[in-house]
This record gives sequence, C-alpha cells and structure tokens, in this order.
Amino acid sequence: MDLLKQKILNDGIVLSDSVLKVDSFLNHQIDPNLMKEIGDEFVERFRDEKITKILTIESSGIAPAVMTALKLGINVVFARKRKSLTLVNDLYTASVHSFTKNVTNEISVSKSFLDENDRILIIDDFLANGQAALGLLDIVKQANAEAVGIGIVIEKSFQDGGEILRDKGIRVESLAQIESLKNGQVTFKEEVTV
Amino acid sequence: MDLLKQKILNDGIVLSDSVLKVDSFLNHQIDPNLMKEIGDEFVERFRDEKITKILTIESSGIAPAVMTALKLGINVVFARKRKSLTLVNDLYTASVHSFTKNVTNEISVSKSFLDENDRILIIDDFLANGQAALGLLDIVKQANAEAVGIGIVIEKSFQDGGEILRDKGIRVESLAQIESLKNGQVTFKEEVTV
Repeated sequence: MDLLKQKILNDGIVLSDSVLKVDSFLNHQIDPNLMKEIGDEFVERFRDEKITKILTIESSGIAPAVMTALKLGINVVFARKRKSLTLVNDLYTASVHSFTKNVTNEISVSKSFLDENDRILIIDDFLANGQAALGLLDIVKQANAEAVGIGIVIEKSFQDGGEILRDKGIRVESLAQIESLKNGQVTFKEEVTV
Repeated sequence: MDLLKQKILNDGIVLSDSVLKVDSFLNHQIDPNLMKEIGDEFVERFRDEKITKILTIESSGIAPAVMTALKLGINVVFARKRKSLTLVNDLYTASVHSFTKNVTNEISVSKSFLDENDRILIIDDFLANGQAALGLLDIVKQANAEAVGIGIVIEKSFQDGGEILRDKGIRVESLAQIESLKNGQVTFKEEVTV
C-alpha cells in the first residue's frame, strides 16, 4: 500500500535494527485519513469473506479496525489487556507474551460479543512475533467462530510471526512488509504480484 | 442526540445507581456507524472553533475521536495511561485519579504532538467525576495550547465532573446527559433548547 509505505518512510523513526516507531500516525498520534485508506484496503483484500465482525486489541488496533468495520457495516470488538483477571466466567481469555517487554498479559473478550456464527477478521497495527495474533486466534477458537484472516498494518517480516501464522494456514494480509531496519534504514519486502 | 439515547435505552445495562455499562456499542464492542454519527455531531457543535487537533485518552475515546477528526481532516492524539513513568523528559504528564477503582494513574502525551499553535478539542467516552478531563486539560495547558472545549459521549450529570468543568468556564458538550440511574432506569436530563 503505497500511501502507507510513503508515510513510514517520511515519518517513521528507526530506533534500532528491530524497532520502528510510528507514533506520529498510528501508535500515539493517529492520522484518520490514512486509517480510512487502510480500512478500504482491508475491505478490498477480504471482500469475498462474508465477515460478520472485526476483532482487534487495544489501543492501536482500534482506529484501523473501526474504519474497516465502518465500510463493512459491522461491529468491532477490541480485546482488553489486563495484568490479572478475577472474574473470568463470562470472558474468553488468552495469554499474550511480549518479548520486547518480557511480560505476559492476559487479554480478554466478553462472551456476549463473539459466537459460533461469526466470521471474524482480526486486525492489528503490528505483526512481529505474532503473539498477540495467536492470542486473538485462540479467543476466536474458544468462541467456535471462524477466523477468515488477519489484516496487519505493518509486518516486520524479519521476525517470525508472519511465518508462524502462515504455516498454520492462516491468511495474513500485511499492508506494509518490512524486510529490514538495518543501518537506520527501512527496507520493504518486494511484493509478489500474482 | 436521539440515536445515541435510543441505543443507551435499548442496549445499555444499569449495573447500579451510578454505573451504566455500554460495552455493546462503545466500551468493548464498538458500533462504527454510531461513532460516525457521534463524530458528525461533535463537528456540528464545535464548527466555529477552528480546531487543529483532537485529544483523547485510550481506549474508549479513540473511536469517537477518530471519526470526529476524519470529518475535520485533522489528527487525533490519544493520551496513554501507565502506572508509572520513568522517562518523562519528552512527555507532558498528568495524574488522573479514578474514584471507582481508587487508583491514580499517570497519563502522558509526547511533546512532539501538541504545541502552542494548537486549538484542541478534547473528546472522551464518559464524564463522571471529571478527573480524566481535568488531566487532559492540564496537558493542553502544559503545551501552551488552547482547549476550545470538551466533547463527551455520555455524561453522568448526577456526578460532579460536568459542574466542575463548566464552573471553570470550559465549554462541555455532552451528547447524552444522564440525570439518574435509580431503580435500574436510565433517565435523561431534559435538554434546554436556546
């Protein structure tokens, strides 16, 4: 997605060989027009999937998820992150390990909002080690719903999350795939046009 | 705002005399079409204010804020909530006390995204004791920016946040004002048409 790649090149900050900061348009400040274009692109890519609900995770997944859902005329559910959960009877929960912060969080979704008739598109801002996506997939499975795929704004292809998910047969659509952040430089993966 | 009030009556759950749960369209599941209508209404109410940026707070403020910002063609910044902050040099920070949870959190906004030329509309999902709004106003003040007003989706008028803010001369526009939740019943405040 050219607009997104241009934005990453112009406004992204490479903090290290593995960390790209996009606080100016996605993770802290949000560019709503870019989010709308991102939503349109996800709708285009998953147009035949008869999606009934978008599942994302707070906080940075919410804006792209809401724009996608608006276009599709369906609802979004965002999973909540909490350190520990006391009342879990009415919740689907999964553990998500963050390698960056070396901490494991519980994520949860109320059982009221996902069921076995749902065809769910998972949307998230970043894909790195894939832990958040795996947690969301786990929740979809607990609900006996179907995950039609995962829409990612920025995939760090040099980390293994994308491979783990695709090896499971999950359809992953990433709007920008970053091959390398070496030498302070963003290099995108070449897109294979079928 | 009639659509919102109808949604509250149909789908809101009164948990006690002071707690209204709107997890089905605002705080956990999100109805994007309602968010769009909410955004349109905020734009209408603040149309003469030459707003340059929307400031909100994660997570439930993000969806209405992004829809408002999309219509205005400007960016959103969401304040982050954290337990404690180590690096604060490049951040505006404020303390926000939650009476419900009896805990004080730091909220923060990067100095990169607000400055003295900004005319800021603050948007949040709920107004109860006003602590989050006061924290956001504090951050706007630290940035030497101007707060043109506060747009609230649901105000609990029986709590004192609205009064505290209006007594300070802040313009507060709440799309639904709840006078009482007694006896499991939502009663809206009567709107005064000027």
